[in-house]
Amino acid sequence: MNTTRDTGLVLYHAWASTCSQKVRFALAEKGLSWQGHVLSLRHFEHLSDAFLTINPDGLVPVLLHDGFKLRESSVINAYVDEVFPDPPLTPPGPRGRAQVAMWSQFIDDVTSPAIKKPSFAANLGPHLQTLDPAFVARMLSRMPSASIAERWRDAAGDGIPQAQIAQSLADLRRSLERMTTALADGPWLVGDFFSLADINMAPFVARIATLPQFDLATDWPQVHDWYQRFRSRPAIAQASIVEQQLQQTA
Amino acid sequence: MNTTRDTGLVLYHAWASTCSQKVRFALAEKGLSWQGHVLSLRHFEHLSDAFLTINPDGLVPVLLHDGFKLRESSVINAYVDEVFPDPPLTPPGPRGRAQVAMWSQFIDDVTSPAIKKPSFAANLGPHLQTLDPAFVARMLSRMPSASIAERWRDAAGDGIPQAQIAQSLADLRRSLERMTTALADGPWLVGDFFSLADINMAPFVARIATLPQFDLATDWPQVHDWYQRFRSRPAIAQASIVEQQLQQTA
Repeated sequence: MNTTRDTGLVLYHAWASTCSQKVRFALAEKGLSWQGHVLSLRHFEHLSDAFLTINPDGLVPVLLHDGFKLRESSVINAYVDEVFPDPPLTPPGPRGRAQVAMWSQFIDDVTSPAIKKPSFAANLGPHLQTLDPAFVARMLSRMPSASIAERWRDAAGDGIPQAQIAQSLADLRRSLERMTTALADGPWLVGDFFSLADINMAPFVARIATLPQFDLATDWPQVHDWYQRFRSRPAIAQASIVEQQLQQTA
Repeated sequence: MNTTRDTGLVLYHAWASTCSQKVRFALAEKGLSWQGHVLSLRHFEHLSDAFLTINPDGLVPVLLHDGFKLRESSVINAYVDEVFPDPPLTPPGPRGRAQVAMWSQFIDDVTSPAIKKPSFAANLGPHLQTLDPAFVARMLSRMPSASIAERWRDAAGDGIPQAQIAQSLADLRRSLERMTTALADGPWLVGDFFSLADINMAPFVARIATLPQFDLATDWPQVHDWYQRFRSRPAIAQASIVEQQLQQTA
């Protein structure tokens, strides 16, 4: 994207996918060019025969590097950081790697599942409810993960149950609390080293900021300031402008 | 456990915890001694003030290495493999590491959450239901994760909903299918390299084997054979004998 040298990188991604955004931001910070294949989740393109051949999990992103296929955004970003080490996005040594890995695991286990329910309720659900229910049911029968299929079915049907929304909001608050604690030793999540911990968290904070239940500037000022710092990084700012333009034409 | 040299390793763990078992097996394969602190989950020792100071997530295992604190069993095992590289439990190079990391992520995202609901229904639930409900509620109010607290509450109350059990069983079948596909290129999950992918999966297969809904020898013969190979490894066999003895006295 930023350079023209051939990196051998091919990314299958969706503009609205937080996990795709993690990878786009890592590639941007590295200044790596990549060939993109965009999927529309709203049109169930991730459940097409063609894409299920590429990823039987039916999930974006997928990165190909010289033909080697990588699934899972946290795995992809760790791989990219290892194969393209300049600039490094992991603090040096086993302890540095473990500190980033603990953040990535927390994001994958707590923050990422938690954002999906209120975000689906606000964004994807109203769209799915305009579609023919039989068509939606047929598409979702193709979803390999039983738990992800259930979330889509809830969003398309009577909506995500309120008890689940409340539980998700609690887990999001816990994410913001953990960030606040870490940022006392900031300016980044792992001290003064800008890392994949920041990149992997940023798309979720961006999504949290769109939810009416959160006012980051007032209630989570350290996280708000961190996100402003993140967005102000030249590579991220440039990638974000491109993202906004492409999302509008998607 | 197997040697007497001082490794600087201190493990907080529970004998009945699948994620603790992942770490004990990795340490056994490395032949590393460790000092252990055992917690009883049935007695809510992971939610004590003392342990929440060690891990604010209220989860085992936690590994201390010369005072450096590591949470999350997959992170712990990757760290141990890096710091104590002999014998290696990750195939060489970035691609080898990515292959193991993709398995670990699948286990953490799909297999581990899926085993907990049928396993709680069969094991922990009946125990929790014998306790004073007010005491259980007070303990569970100390659980930091809203989603984990809910699973314990369901198990202690009217039981895990049948729809959730069915969804979990579907995700467990998906785990066994993925293993079967990989083992066609076996004998291990990443080809002929015995790795953390095998170690991180094994405790879940052991738990699946205890569920009445699964007959591995008949319906999943490749997984059954793999698990027999796993159990026959000298370090694993020895660790398993110790585990059985200690679980009986716990």
